[in-house]
Amino acid sequence: MIKEFQKLLKEKKIDFYIVPTDDDHQSETVGAYYQVRAYLSGFSGSAGTLLVTPNEAYLWTDGRYFIQAAKELKEGITLMKMAQKGVPTLVEFLKEHVKNNSVIAFDGQTMKCQFVFELEEALDEDVQMISCDLIKDFWVNRPAMSCEKAYMYDLQFHGCPAHEKIQVIQEYMKENDCNAHIIAPLDDIAWTFNLRGRDIPCSPTTLAFAMITLDESYLYLQKDAVDDELISLYKEENVIIKDYFDIYEDVQKLEGRVLLNTAYINYQLFNCIQCDIVEGMNPSQAFKSIKNETEIRNTQNAHLKDGVAMTKFMYWLKTNYGKIPMDELSVADKVLEYRQQQDLFTQTSFTTICAFNENAALMHYHASKEHYSSIEGDGFLLIDSGGQYLDGTTDITRTYALGKVSSQQKRHYTMVLQGMLALQHAHFLYGCTGQNLDILARQPMWREDLDYQCGTGHGIGHFLNVHEGPHGIRPRPRTNAESTPFEAGMIVTDEPGIYLENQYGIRIENELLCVEGKENEYGQFLHFDVLTYVPIDLDAIDVDLLTYQEKNWLNDYHQDVYAKISPYLSEEEKNWLKDYTRKI
Amino acid sequence: MIKEFQKLLKEKKIDFYIVPTDDDHQSETVGAYYQVRAYLSGFSGSAGTLLVTPNEAYLWTDGRYFIQAAKELKEGITLMKMAQKGVPTLVEFLKEHVKNNSVIAFDGQTMKCQFVFELEEALDEDVQMISCDLIKDFWVNRPAMSCEKAYMYDLQFHGCPAHEKIQVIQEYMKENDCNAHIIAPLDDIAWTFNLRGRDIPCSPTTLAFAMITLDESYLYLQKDAVDDELISLYKEENVIIKDYFDIYEDVQKLEGRVLLNTAYINYQLFNCIQCDIVEGMNPSQAFKSIKNETEIRNTQNAHLKDGVAMTKFMYWLKTNYGKIPMDELSVADKVLEYRQQQDLFTQTSFTTICAFNENAALMHYHASKEHYSSIEGDGFLLIDSGGQYLDGTTDITRTYALGKVSSQQKRHYTMVLQGMLALQHAHFLYGCTGQNLDILARQPMWREDLDYQCGTGHGIGHFLNVHEGPHGIRPRPRTNAESTPFEAGMIVTDEPGIYLENQYGIRIENELLCVEGKENEYGQFLHFDVLTYVPIDLDAIDVDLLTYQEKNWLNDYHQDVYAKISPYLSEEEKNWLKDYTRKI
Repeated sequence: MIKEFQKLLKEKKIDFYIVPTDDDHQSETVGAYYQVRAYLSGFSGSAGTLLVTPNEAYLWTDGRYFIQAAKELKEGITLMKMAQKGVPTLVEFLKEHVKNNSVIAFDGQTMKCQFVFELEEALDEDVQMISCDLIKDFWVNRPAMSCEKAYMYDLQFHGCPAHEKIQVIQEYMKENDCNAHIIAPLDDIAWTFNLRGRDIPCSPTTLAFAMITLDESYLYLQKDAVDDELISLYKEENVIIKDYFDIYEDVQKLEGRVLLNTAYINYQLFNCIQCDIVEGMNPSQAFKSIKNETEIRNTQNAHLKDGVAMTKFMYWLKTNYGKIPMDELSVADKVLEYRQQQDLFTQTSFTTICAFNENAALMHYHASKEHYSSIEGDGFLLIDSGGQYLDGTTDITRTYALGKVSSQQKRHYTMVLQGMLALQHAHFLYGCTGQNLDILARQPMWREDLDYQCGTGHGIGHFLNVHEGPHGIRPRPRTNAESTPFEAGMIVTDEPGIYLENQYGIRIENELLCVEGKENEYGQFLHFDVLTYVPIDLDAIDVDLLTYQEKNWLNDYHQDVYAKISPYLSEEEKNWLKDYTRKI
Repeated sequence: MIKEFQKLLKEKKIDFYIVPTDDDHQSETVGAYYQVRAYLSGFSGSAGTLLVTPNEAYLWTDGRYFIQAAKELKEGITLMKMAQKGVPTLVEFLKEHVKNNSVIAFDGQTMKCQFVFELEEALDEDVQMISCDLIKDFWVNRPAMSCEKAYMYDLQFHGCPAHEKIQVIQEYMKENDCNAHIIAPLDDIAWTFNLRGRDIPCSPTTLAFAMITLDESYLYLQKDAVDDELISLYKEENVIIKDYFDIYEDVQKLEGRVLLNTAYINYQLFNCIQCDIVEGMNPSQAFKSIKNETEIRNTQNAHLKDGVAMTKFMYWLKTNYGKIPMDELSVADKVLEYRQQQDLFTQTSFTTICAFNENAALMHYHASKEHYSSIEGDGFLLIDSGGQYLDGTTDITRTYALGKVSSQQKRHYTMVLQGMLALQHAHFLYGCTGQNLDILARQPMWREDLDYQCGTGHGIGHFLNVHEGPHGIRPRPRTNAESTPFEAGMIVTDEPGIYLENQYGIRIENELLCVEGKENEYGQFLHFDVLTYVPIDLDAIDVDLLTYQEKNWLNDYHQDVYAKISPYLSEEEKNWLKDYTRKI
């Protein structure tokens, strides 16, 4: 297959062809139609970039996928292990290998324009960059682009009609002297227009572009995703629906100054724009991160249901373990089963991580039909999962002690709990970012020379993407947007962990809502309200390691869990929960 | 006086004359010769900028000095309260008041060139900026420029000869494609050349400039500060001594690329440079922040002596309080007396803050002969002081309970202690900055809606300035340099506090040395060793509020204090210390 593709490159006189893992919107997860890199390389992981030359081929992927990629990659493709000593990045590799007049090609519609800028800046040689889609004719039997019905998200769940949101964006455009704004990220479009669909796995978004001018707004949707009812509903919001592909033509006619975020615009679309570009964060990214009262009330309700599902699941797990056979796939199905019993549940918000013992030490492990473990004997079971409910999106991790766990395991579990609780109970002044807060969660691990090599928390959408910016909690922001200060109404996860290779992984994750405290001469104080109410496994805690304050925090939390969740349980479940939320 | 100066402005056709509080080196504290702003305005505080126009005059100063400035300012000068609502900054004020062809003048030698850049950027109008020193002829009986003898700092105290440091700087210059480097900050020069003097209050530095090329290095010193011995000592280090004022001519002859930090170069000197300028942190700023083994060993010894002095003082205070009269000035003198008994002590490292009750709530209060309080009755006495020992610079704050203190006072004291201890016991990964660590010290206060509105910690020089960059601990860095990650060998203060207007102020300050912990797959772990060993007043602590861990931390610290300090005490002092370092 690669050989045939290389023949095509030779014909077209292309020296380097780059295949990223992206759709036209830089979505975190992409549909089957966009799995070009997997199709050409054989590697099915969620992240990776393929570079094909007339005689060679290379695949860059990160540490999560080294083993899987080595297994899956087709013959003739070299695995490039990202961030390993001596392994160049794709840009460095190209910098080293291009010559004057080299031709670098890629499908501009699925290429981040910022990557092209980076490449252009790095290359000294005079190269030719060509945007061309060689895959269109090459991939026979390619799956179709997803085209599920788009629909308008019900006002009762979000409380703010599209025309009001658009007006706020137009105000922002005026303040920034812009007469047009192009939006490409599907969740920004979904939030702004109260538009939902099902074109992206685990995210209720629909393939779309949007353009807002000072007096009009346009939604670009696939013809078959739209019906007359939707068109007339949007007419009432003063939104004109156009064909998905028309955006590429329409932006060419723009004059004046157009606001857009080059981190989220594909290269092809960017190149169609002739007028002045004002680079900046999409205002919708900032606005949607601050949930309004209706969204908060609905989210709390979604979490209550999610808490009921997860508590019922925990009862099932704890009372059936050792009695019936269990494996990572069947247990993940069980979690889904309990969520499906809940009102307004639509789908999972991401692929469930259900990982036993050493599997959980691989931070992004997913069991598959080809590779999964049975759950038996002693150890920790880590389950990170979430639901897309019409009234909110959830994300929760619990780690369960099954059988007997060692004193070291308990100590580690307790340290993770201490970090999670310290952040949950943080009090801080307006102006603080996730960079300021991160150490509260990490300190118990750092004290023992351990670390979890990922962020502590991320924002989360409202019946939208499970990962949502701009804010986040990590030691160093990866982008300017990530150093956005916390505001009341922001939701963030709190998920420290310990991962010991070949042994076990522990993560405990609650979702937190940022709320206002006192305002006084020092400024506006902020803290967190908890959204997640699900027991934390007392079987795994070494009570002696907790301070008096930490015990109080845990006891108060468990009292709230019982008060909120028990009304929805059977008598047996209720008795069991009473014990699992007992005072320690 | 101002009227006469305004006459001069009219003669010279100057519309705005700016008088900052600076010497030619942007030193934090300036000598009598440079007190131009105080001379013209009458206001004697340490910070402020005077603007004189032919008919008006304005003085900008910050919250520390509103009361003092209102009292001291001469007639006809308007007080501009910085950071108060509706009060423009100096730049905003000028932006509003200049017209086309306005003439703005200042003494370029005492003007930060970055301020001029900022002003130029802000002003739309076509104004004329003139560098001229109107004070020279105007100020009759002006004190002379300080010209104390300069000397070479003894190798035994710092362990690295000047030619080695210069070589490292030259390597850095080569890496950055620079053939020359100009150094203006007195402490950077002092460190690089192992040069000391006594031209700046509380800092053992000497007025100097330095220039380093790839094969030569020049020290510019006042003629009378130098003798033949010094010249020959520097000859051995391949350093050529020239006249202080020659720098202005010499830089004009520079060719190629010169490295300098515009934050620390005066406008006049900057304007003399004709060749390419490479803007960057002075390498000496980064290098000197990481103390070598000799400096660390010496610093530890200086702190031991400082600890003996402060412990003896505390014994005196606690055993004499209520028996003999005390006031803020006499007690500060007593502190100095105990320091003076110590080997290698030269002077205080900054003006001692000795503040009783409500005076301590003013964060930068200094008692003066005109205004000080007697110390009697109940309350908190805050003493922030330090010494310049030949083997190191110290900075320590202790707050003492005198008479009876209330349960709220004890609670607040204990919170400050908890913050101080949490930071002192921080463990973190290489890459962390003060922004990451700050919240550890602040969390106990923030939990109770309190804040101290200043940084938590600053770097400190080695027999040099008590405030030294680039690192620091605060929620948000004020400059890029301040977000320098911690490195083993850096020293930083740890000084959280609580300040309640009209009531009392509490601050507890230890100095910490950053040291390496384990290096493993997660990276290089770092933590702090304590440098300061002086009892923390047990009379002021509410033991019930401390966790088991915090009690252990305090008990271990006090055990170390006793072990290190008691050998230098009398029997009575020793018995007293035994009690004041008892286990709680």
